[in-house]
Amino acid sequence: MTALSQEIAVVNVGLEGFGKELAAQKVPVVQVDWRPPAGGDTALIRKLAILQDEQVDEANALTVKRMVEARPAWIDVRPAIEAIPGLERHTILHSGPPIAFGDMCDPQQRAVEGAAIFEGLASGREELERKLAHRDIVLRPNYELGSLGAMCGVISPSMPVIVTEDPASAKRTWSTFNEGKGNVIWMGAFDQATIERLRWMRDVLGPTLAKAVRQAEGGLDIFKIISEGLQMGDEVHARSAACTLLLHRWLAPLLLAGDADKKTIREVLGFIAGNNHSFLSLTLTACKVACEVAHGVPRSTVVTAMSRNGVDFAIRVGGVPDRWFIAPTAPMDEAIYYSGYGPQDAAGDIGDSAIVETAGLGGLVIGAAPSISSFVGGTVSHARQAMSAMRAICTATNPKFSPSAVDFMPGPVGIDIRKVVRTGVAPIIDTGVLHKASGVGQIGTGIARAPLEPFRRAVAAFPLP
Amino acid sequence: MTALSQEIAVVNVGLEGFGKELAAQKVPVVQVDWRPPAGGDTALIRKLAILQDEQVDEANALTVKRMVEARPAWIDVRPAIEAIPGLERHTILHSGPPIAFGDMCDPQQRAVEGAAIFEGLASGREELERKLAHRDIVLRPNYELGSLGAMCGVISPSMPVIVTEDPASAKRTWSTFNEGKGNVIWMGAFDQATIERLRWMRDVLGPTLAKAVRQAEGGLDIFKIISEGLQMGDEVHARSAACTLLLHRWLAPLLLAGDADKKTIREVLGFIAGNNHSFLSLTLTACKVACEVAHGVPRSTVVTAMSRNGVDFAIRVGGVPDRWFIAPTAPMDEAIYYSGYGPQDAAGDIGDSAIVETAGLGGLVIGAAPSISSFVGGTVSHARQAMSAMRAICTATNPKFSPSAVDFMPGPVGIDIRKVVRTGVAPIIDTGVLHKASGVGQIGTGIARAPLEPFRRAVAAFPLP
Repeated sequence: MTALSQEIAVVNVGLEGFGKELAAQKVPVVQVDWRPPAGGDTALIRKLAILQDEQVDEANALTVKRMVEARPAWIDVRPAIEAIPGLERHTILHSGPPIAFGDMCDPQQRAVEGAAIFEGLASGREELERKLAHRDIVLRPNYELGSLGAMCGVISPSMPVIVTEDPASAKRTWSTFNEGKGNVIWMGAFDQATIERLRWMRDVLGPTLAKAVRQAEGGLDIFKIISEGLQMGDEVHARSAACTLLLHRWLAPLLLAGDADKKTIREVLGFIAGNNHSFLSLTLTACKVACEVAHGVPRSTVVTAMSRNGVDFAIRVGGVPDRWFIAPTAPMDEAIYYSGYGPQDAAGDIGDSAIVETAGLGGLVIGAAPSISSFVGGTVSHARQAMSAMRAICTATNPKFSPSAVDFMPGPVGIDIRKVVRTGVAPIIDTGVLHKASGVGQIGTGIARAPLEPFRRAVAAFPLP
Repeated sequence: MTALSQEIAVVNVGLEGFGKELAAQKVPVVQVDWRPPAGGDTALIRKLAILQDEQVDEANALTVKRMVEARPAWIDVRPAIEAIPGLERHTILHSGPPIAFGDMCDPQQRAVEGAAIFEGLASGREELERKLAHRDIVLRPNYELGSLGAMCGVISPSMPVIVTEDPASAKRTWSTFNEGKGNVIWMGAFDQATIERLRWMRDVLGPTLAKAVRQAEGGLDIFKIISEGLQMGDEVHARSAACTLLLHRWLAPLLLAGDADKKTIREVLGFIAGNNHSFLSLTLTACKVACEVAHGVPRSTVVTAMSRNGVDFAIRVGGVPDRWFIAPTAPMDEAIYYSGYGPQDAAGDIGDSAIVETAGLGGLVIGAAPSISSFVGGTVSHARQAMSAMRAICTATNPKFSPSAVDFMPGPVGIDIRKVVRTGVAPIIDTGVLHKASGVGQIGTGIARAPLEPFRRAVAAFPLP
């Protein structure tokens, strides 16, 4: 009696083809989803082995502790030029890593153009390009100045910005108010009404909200609202409907106690409540502040920023203070497109808003938002699986962000470049999709998977002890 | 070779003891949870057999169709005496079936006393009892006049009431605004501040909201808000946090467009937004209107009202227009108690609010509210099972009430007395718990299971064709 005279069962590890052939012949097969670590890159495998050390683990734990214990509060509203140190007149900020105007994706170019017209710096594309060539208008990435923006992420000097601060560390950041839907520069679309809306935001919204928020002792505890929103169907990146309602509730009494007239209060509250993304800008600033507080722990391999401009994707790592790791951005293959559009129409993944996932929200707690579980397979069970996958590349979980919809499973937090590179599992980023050329703005929504290359570069360049 | 010389496996139907003994002897046992229909009552079984007929099924389908297609809108606020036909001065309304003051549970007595003081009808318990004895004050159940109230459910003539109407049928109902937490008469507790709050509700809240709601073309579509709330963690009986935020968002611009001053608007919005149960009163009226629209289809065995007063539990059935079926109310064994309290301290299940489950919300869609899945076992999976159990005693499902948290599983609707009696499965009712004696008000929250007896009585009395 030889081994093969008995019935055999097969455990097939790695490539599926062999197992499938056996299965077709009715041989019992268990498939093990295995890939060589780091895609089999031996130099990276060696580097990962070196980084498997207790000092790194401790540095990562400290990084995450700082990230989850930060208490970012919305404390003020000011014109960008007054609020953001280093921002100069004639400067327009954008999302993602540094990029020349000619290399920008079409929607980001349009956003810059809209901002230039709003600021009176140019009357249109031609004047804009001429002034850019002469450096009469200068483009800079938000991340050089510590600000950030969703999607095209354009901030120009006279736009009012949200000022958010972590009181213990005095770390601050800034972002614009969300413009809403339709022709809006954050989505790379504008017309005359867009410019007029930006003026109203500058002249009415900003000053009115500034007075309101300054009245609130300690400002608005943004993570407190987010904790509540996570119990109400928001994952706070693609969906901020509940948080926006909570913001509206918080603002109403402050506005009514101040000197604004009823008509202005009605306009301002209506603008905030009329856009389910209103809270998103606050989320961005809170996540950015938390990541700033966490950044800079020596030996930490935890990601402290992810940022994209539609062309390139940049990450920053806690233990590498002054360097960004940059590679081409992700395609939008897994998004859900509006009728008539598809991946062939999409600009690349864009926005500083991936800071949301960096801080352990958005795609990392997608189970909080059952209404968008279609992004990851269709059911809450799929969303739970996606969260488990994210857990595998993170340092810890955050009990403060524990959505009830997944039985209070705590959200993963602290993306570790070692784990991403070893497993080949990329962070999920909830995001919108922009048309690559037509100026129509948003054409879909869904998830992007971060490209692995910036993580691989970060591991390769990570300093030895 | 006899049958028993082979290995045996057992399917054990009904009583578990026999199966358990076999299992202890390592015999494979499958337990089938079976009980004789209608608890083995042969008269009821015969009646159920007669009611197994197509006419009844058709009548039930029509009943549910009317229930789910009703579009109740909040259209006005008026003093109860003006709004509720048949309500007279010196009359105090209460929840549940008719009951004498001396037979009421302690919290409902206290609620009546608070209302009498508020109305200036009595200065305290002694005067109240004397006037009740002389019929200078009269108690009547809400359900005789078409109004309803949560928990103690007390409505007195000068209280402002929500007026809700189904425009197609012109059916109307009325309920008071929710008072909030603490010493509040809906929970059977009051002090001087309670009376002052009731006066403020009469003099400020009611008139101010009346002007606001009358400005809104068509009023507020209550089921539309509920549909949204079901995607945001509310099952709209125990939890109405999201719906209350949506109500606040709806009210703010209406108030700001009217002639109320900012201070008054601030107070009114603050009162609404400061109490997560604010929306509950609107839910009650909408469910009641939908059930009124559905009530009265000949041969229908669908329940069109459930109502309790802490002592008795009453149901009404679509095909029996003018009669209520009454039996002792449920004990609060399955509730979650505040620290220091337990079932021994609890008054019986109370309130007209079981209309919420009657209309296919609350306990019937408990999966909408993962944060309270502890009521039914602890996880969303338990909540889904509870919804499946409710599906077994209902006529249909309502696609408009399909919570995302349970993968858009539509809520069961149209409780069928035949199915309840046959299976012995009682409707789940989400509810609060009141102290039976101390006047402390609420001491817990959770679920009650409707007693089976009113359903058995309804089946027994159901008219033959």
